[in-house]
Amino acid sequence: MTKINKLTKDILSAIRESIGTDPQPLHAPSFSLTEINYLSECIESTYVSSVGSFVGKFERMLADYTGAKYAIATVNGTAALHVALKIVGVSKNDEVLIPALTFIATANAVSYCNAIPHFVEAESESMGIDVKKLRSYLHNISEIKNGECINRITNRRIKAIVPMHTFGHPSNLDDLLKLCDEFQIVLVEDAAESLGSLYKDRHTGTFGAVGTLSFNGNKILTTGGGGAILTNSLELATQARHLTTTGKLPHKWEFNHDVVGFNYRMPNLNAALGCAQMEKITNFIELKRDLFCRYNESFSNIKGVALIREPKECRSNYWLQTLVLDQEYAHLRDEILRETNNVGLMTRPAWSILSNSIPYAGSPKMDLVFTKTLASRIINIPSSPNLMSASI
Amino acid sequence: MTKINKLTKDILSAIRESIGTDPQPLHAPSFSLTEINYLSECIESTYVSSVGSFVGKFERMLADYTGAKYAIATVNGTAALHVALKIVGVSKNDEVLIPALTFIATANAVSYCNAIPHFVEAESESMGIDVKKLRSYLHNISEIKNGECINRITNRRIKAIVPMHTFGHPSNLDDLLKLCDEFQIVLVEDAAESLGSLYKDRHTGTFGAVGTLSFNGNKILTTGGGGAILTNSLELATQARHLTTTGKLPHKWEFNHDVVGFNYRMPNLNAALGCAQMEKITNFIELKRDLFCRYNESFSNIKGVALIREPKECRSNYWLQTLVLDQEYAHLRDEILRETNNVGLMTRPAWSILSNSIPYAGSPKMDLVFTKTLASRIINIPSSPNLMSASI
Repeated sequence: MTKINKLTKDILSAIRESIGTDPQPLHAPSFSLTEINYLSECIESTYVSSVGSFVGKFERMLADYTGAKYAIATVNGTAALHVALKIVGVSKNDEVLIPALTFIATANAVSYCNAIPHFVEAESESMGIDVKKLRSYLHNISEIKNGECINRITNRRIKAIVPMHTFGHPSNLDDLLKLCDEFQIVLVEDAAESLGSLYKDRHTGTFGAVGTLSFNGNKILTTGGGGAILTNSLELATQARHLTTTGKLPHKWEFNHDVVGFNYRMPNLNAALGCAQMEKITNFIELKRDLFCRYNESFSNIKGVALIREPKECRSNYWLQTLVLDQEYAHLRDEILRETNNVGLMTRPAWSILSNSIPYAGSPKMDLVFTKTLASRIINIPSSPNLMSASI
Repeated sequence: MTKINKLTKDILSAIRESIGTDPQPLHAPSFSLTEINYLSECIESTYVSSVGSFVGKFERMLADYTGAKYAIATVNGTAALHVALKIVGVSKNDEVLIPALTFIATANAVSYCNAIPHFVEAESESMGIDVKKLRSYLHNISEIKNGECINRITNRRIKAIVPMHTFGHPSNLDDLLKLCDEFQIVLVEDAAESLGSLYKDRHTGTFGAVGTLSFNGNKILTTGGGGAILTNSLELATQARHLTTTGKLPHKWEFNHDVVGFNYRMPNLNAALGCAQMEKITNFIELKRDLFCRYNESFSNIKGVALIREPKECRSNYWLQTLVLDQEYAHLRDEILRETNNVGLMTRPAWSILSNSIPYAGSPKMDLVFTKTLASRIINIPSSPNLMSASI
């Protein structure tokens, strides 16, 4: 029998103390009869596809909840980010600053625009972009020419920056906005993980020119597959709506298109699920915040690991509860993952750093020394909202 | 009051004689309790997203039904075609031969590969590609160099051809296969409209290296939004599955990706709908073929218009019933569209020819003289399967 380290045992015990010993997925959605009723209503209407009342209703609910003027529902978060980058003008051979520590979809959306991701460093509080280090880096490598930020090394335009609010915790948006202003870069927020998360009382995804959400199966709210584009600009909203609906010009029967558009509209069936889920979002977030408190209690006395809490002046949705091992215990990560998963308590590490991935190994990057150490120490632990309702 | 032409009146009467006077959409899906039951089952399983039993079940049903060895379900038909083109090797600056008379998604999928659509002429029987004219055209403009077809005018490789089986009627696949062999071009079938249509007893979409299906709301079978890739090649199926699931390499918890992939997997929720619909596909096709017979009777004595029937040696799904006006009555098209839509009988014209569209006006094309006259004379009339069950 392999010897198991004390920290591993302590972590396993703390998880069990918080949520019990039953097997648990990383994040399961919570459904009730409402979901089935809305889906039935959708089927009975016969409108299951891109036309139908639930899509508009879901968009209005998202706009109301986030405070964005406009919300445009899409097939998924990747599609939302692709179109978001398009409408802010990201073009072929542009560079887009993105965290090295994010899901590969953030980088892929940049690639779909024939643009190049440029990887930036993380900081410890939000696990998002380290704005201070980035500013100093941009001062070194870029210059403003004709109102555009040019990378002096690659000679390419740096058009946009895409912070991602990691596991639901808001990045430092005030500093990001200042940086964008200083370097003439467009802010597009990847809020895929942060529906319900606030930065200084304002919803993430509404600070940039555009923000994007995801409603994949493991997100805080799910539509099966789905995403949304948020913006306060009528012009950008109109463009987003046009591009996500194949670029078809309105006409009673003629088919005319003025751009190469996308088949990215969320189907009414998926929006029906979304409407049912949106009715519960406040409750989901309360449960997840309660779960954080529960874990926080259990982990408070364990040396060698920290439970991530919301950054200052932020209210996080605590989408995924996150442990960060102290550097000296980083080598235990795989043992902890193995032992927890072996007993059916699903945990997982952070994403592999994108600058090390095969498709993006050649992309430009700043010094990622902290990202590398951080990524090697992160463990997400079971985070479903129903863990609290079940265990109370 | 505007004077209405006799042919317009005759067409309106014939439609009413066939399907009654109630308002009718162009194509409404048919649902029953099965759809609601499967959706409920999906919700109860909590697997609504890209993991879940319905996706695999739907793929097996599609493979069994079409006779393709592999079926890979996607978010929609456009996504399916995009990936189909990728896996057969369509690359930047390649040309792909496609009909000028098709929905813009066919051309867009080519654009997403950074390739260029090259528009080809239609013939009258199937409304698909005129292979004879195309052969003669390719003899004029292309040459084979190192086993590849090169357009001598643009100096670009012509990598693939994408016939589309218009309104469900199979293109001449034998002739297309011969042409592909002669010119070293890959055949990719856009079978978005032809689920259930056979060419010489074999299912459309299974003749090319890859074929693609669509399950949009107005298609013969719907999943809300959805599509599928069909292939007999294990290698292509593996690539398609990999590319449609973000290119993630299998691992219990690590996130590693070896390509720029796509978030194109059909959600389990949509697949649940698909499974219910697939159980009825044989019945849908019978009803639609019966509807053709009904229309055929009503239109048989009307001079100036023809109801399109399946090409020789084909069995069509008759997805959309199609009228083609004689050339001398082409000018009546808009009047007929207006008068039918005004009384709630939804009709629509063919797509505008893609070579005239803003995004593709500069694309290469052969002489499209017949496509132009054909496109200006097409009218699709109400085609829902339940028109027969309701009116019998």
